[in-house]
Amino acid sequence: MVLTREVVTLGSATSIIYWDMETKMPPKGVNLRSQQLGILSQLIHRLSTKPEIGKLLSKISKHPDLASLTNLQKRNLYLIQKHYDEQTKLPEKLVAETAKQEAIATDVWKKAKAAKDFEQFRPELEKMLHLKRQAADILMEVKGTKTPYDALIDIYEPKMSADAISHVFTGLREGLVTILQKCVTSRNQPDPKVLKRKIPINSQRKISNEIAKFIGYDVQSPQAGGRIDETEHPFTTGYYDDVRITTHYYENDMASSLFSVLHEGGHAIYDQNLKQEWMFQPIGSSPSLGFHESQSRFVENIIGRSREFWTFFYPKLNKLTENAFTDLSLDTFVRAINHVQPSKIRVEADEVTYCLHVIIRFEIERDLIPGKIAVKDLPEIWNQKYKEYLGVDIENDQEGVLQDIHWAGGGFGYFPTYALGNIISGQLLQTMEKSIPDWKTQISQGNFGNVKNWLVKNVHEHGDLYDPAILVKKITGEEMNFKPYLGYLENKFSWVYKY
Amino acid sequence: MVLTREVVTLGSATSIIYWDMETKMPPKGVNLRSQQLGILSQLIHRLSTKPEIGKLLSKISKHPDLASLTNLQKRNLYLIQKHYDEQTKLPEKLVAETAKQEAIATDVWKKAKAAKDFEQFRPELEKMLHLKRQAADILMEVKGTKTPYDALIDIYEPKMSADAISHVFTGLREGLVTILQKCVTSRNQPDPKVLKRKIPINSQRKISNEIAKFIGYDVQSPQAGGRIDETEHPFTTGYYDDVRITTHYYENDMASSLFSVLHEGGHAIYDQNLKQEWMFQPIGSSPSLGFHESQSRFVENIIGRSREFWTFFYPKLNKLTENAFTDLSLDTFVRAINHVQPSKIRVEADEVTYCLHVIIRFEIERDLIPGKIAVKDLPEIWNQKYKEYLGVDIENDQEGVLQDIHWAGGGFGYFPTYALGNIISGQLLQTMEKSIPDWKTQISQGNFGNVKNWLVKNVHEHGDLYDPAILVKKITGEEMNFKPYLGYLENKFSWVYKY
Repeated sequence: MVLTREVVTLGSATSIIYWDMETKMPPKGVNLRSQQLGILSQLIHRLSTKPEIGKLLSKISKHPDLASLTNLQKRNLYLIQKHYDEQTKLPEKLVAETAKQEAIATDVWKKAKAAKDFEQFRPELEKMLHLKRQAADILMEVKGTKTPYDALIDIYEPKMSADAISHVFTGLREGLVTILQKCVTSRNQPDPKVLKRKIPINSQRKISNEIAKFIGYDVQSPQAGGRIDETEHPFTTGYYDDVRITTHYYENDMASSLFSVLHEGGHAIYDQNLKQEWMFQPIGSSPSLGFHESQSRFVENIIGRSREFWTFFYPKLNKLTENAFTDLSLDTFVRAINHVQPSKIRVEADEVTYCLHVIIRFEIERDLIPGKIAVKDLPEIWNQKYKEYLGVDIENDQEGVLQDIHWAGGGFGYFPTYALGNIISGQLLQTMEKSIPDWKTQISQGNFGNVKNWLVKNVHEHGDLYDPAILVKKITGEEMNFKPYLGYLENKFSWVYKY
Repeated sequence: MVLTREVVTLGSATSIIYWDMETKMPPKGVNLRSQQLGILSQLIHRLSTKPEIGKLLSKISKHPDLASLTNLQKRNLYLIQKHYDEQTKLPEKLVAETAKQEAIATDVWKKAKAAKDFEQFRPELEKMLHLKRQAADILMEVKGTKTPYDALIDIYEPKMSADAISHVFTGLREGLVTILQKCVTSRNQPDPKVLKRKIPINSQRKISNEIAKFIGYDVQSPQAGGRIDETEHPFTTGYYDDVRITTHYYENDMASSLFSVLHEGGHAIYDQNLKQEWMFQPIGSSPSLGFHESQSRFVENIIGRSREFWTFFYPKLNKLTENAFTDLSLDTFVRAINHVQPSKIRVEADEVTYCLHVIIRFEIERDLIPGKIAVKDLPEIWNQKYKEYLGVDIENDQEGVLQDIHWAGGGFGYFPTYALGNIISGQLLQTMEKSIPDWKTQISQGNFGNVKNWLVKNVHEHGDLYDPAILVKKITGEEMNFKPYLGYLENKFSWVYKY
């Protein structure tokens, strides 16, 4: 397992090099940096596909003592085998062509987005899709999934399928649309404009530190295992004792950074609280992107947009902003941060509409991979769905089909994990309420400790010991289902919109 | 050449990981970081020692067209062969253990230094010495040096030997002691206390940026290839288009950072002005640490402590410090920054005593590697030599044997290069004066361009095309010798001390 350790350690080093590129690198260093990242990813690939791993795995699989391995050992073996198969079954030529096409398509996507012109991007997306279909066909064989698209989903959300997702998303969508209707037709509209007051960046930095302190993400003490920096697109990266988040500060939109820090902080405390003794092992990780997102959304929304959190934090916010909001009641402020508005851009969406953006992307992918729809028709389909699900008119491709980077990078199957994360967060909340019935009181007193410990014990410390659906059942006793999440939304937004 | 490129690129990535450790890493990340650095150095070692390189080198060495190679190609081949020999002869286990021990010993050194207790550090230094002796024994065979210590020196200063250094250092020491005596016995003592005026850190940061601008080290523009951060011990790291320096700010010692920035900036512009087309090739580097140090000392002292530089910069300094020094004449200030004082700390030493600090370390290393003296006796020997050469009483290990990081990092053989750098800088000055007779006037007008171009053309752009002693001869027409440096000091300090 020395090789696994090397791959994991090298991956964690690469994440620092990537972080540096986004946060600290002098601008002139960009070409050198792409060389560095290229070589590191090549080395990681070379190490993960060494024939000796395959031989060892096949030897172990036939070993008489196999049955006597512990569950942890078996799971580690399973994950190594899975990763090895995923890495080695694809022809080298296809891997190389895909990597190249990712770089080209991402570059062209940027230009096409700036020019608001999908047609510029279309040929590159078609090439990318062609390559991804080939990979999906092969992976379908290896993994034994029902469809090629399922094989792609499985990369991000193991054992999940488009059918299962469609089933969950249908009910979710209906529920969301119902809540959305109640919100937009309510006579009691919150006023989100109050959030646009000018708050100096330095005050916002102090707010970030206070938020980090609240959730137990240490970025300041001599034992700190985290730090907060600034990038256009916030992200979390790192491993165990060195997990870093970024945020972006806008003077006239303090909420943007505040909820980014809560969101990324939710990711960060997950990675920091994986079992220490599993470090460098495959199980010392999260089971899926959906599960990771469940933690960020839990902290950002279920905690961070709750009236209880703000009962505690509102006086602090006013102190840190030199009383920028003291003229507003707590409820006015909390309702403002929970304002619902059908919109065109996913990353700016509220809790009620967010999953609708995701569902649109999933439905398109699901039909795109098997060729039921063509790349050339994407803008039209996109705009129709936005009209139908969200009631908005997309005016150009920049605010439409070109808004996300994912497809340019070949990330088909990635989008649904965003909504799955929300669904899981709802189920976690329902279960946690049984263990900590007074969690709201605790949060309103500024005590996140018990909630965090519950997440650590029930989610973080399980690492990648179970596939995501199994882990959901282990924690909640139920299958993955959207009802708790809808219940949570209904409960909250009936208060926000007083419907 | 693909492998060389991979090794060089991976090395440049490692330098960023190291920089991050020193400047940005959350404290908890230290163990993970030592694993990352360990694996990276192992991979670099593995890539540099691939048998196919050996086979290729041996094939080339017998090729009939060998003679028709250009000098550049021949030098690249020579350097690849040299590096390959140095690397292949060291067992991978020894390399990995050394890398790990470097991280551990450095960490313990920090704590021991804070506690002023060499005994805490002793076991880790002994382990390090044990590993380094193993390496030195092997390298002596490979390189055919006279002693194991010579083999270590050769890593930093190719083709240099302890005997040659001893010879040069003897004459240097005598000359320095003579000048030192004249300075300390002069009736005209400068007043260094004027430099201890309180200057806010933020003003000092602005001074750093102005200094960087003066020497043409871009850290601010959208084309910047550098940046300035803060560490306890200033250093320079990076490669070509991404070369970073660090400094340290003390409110009551603005000169400390100012001359650190000049010093590290001298290193940085060297690395940035290597020939662009030699990037990723062995010749796209400096021939030795001594040569590198000649550039930092040239910029820090010959330029930065000259009356001419301050003729230009003194008004700027006063502007940036809200006239903190306007009551002092230019000469009072320039004499203060050239104050000579036998002291305990190398990095704070003036130009006259600096090399004496280095000579002490060289003499200790020379006896430590072959076991003529033992680690446990280091504090006593150290303190004795400081009394003898500099006349100072060392009161504890923090200000004594624990002051430098080098030995914790296994850098035996490194220290003498500091003094060699000074010696070379004197020879460069003597030669440059023939080409740019009015360089002092130019500097006093704020124009560093011609001097810099001279350094670029005569030093930087030669890269690693020649061994250091050969390059000295190429540039100056003379063998490496200490007389120009002593002449420069005599000339300057007879003015400062009016003797």
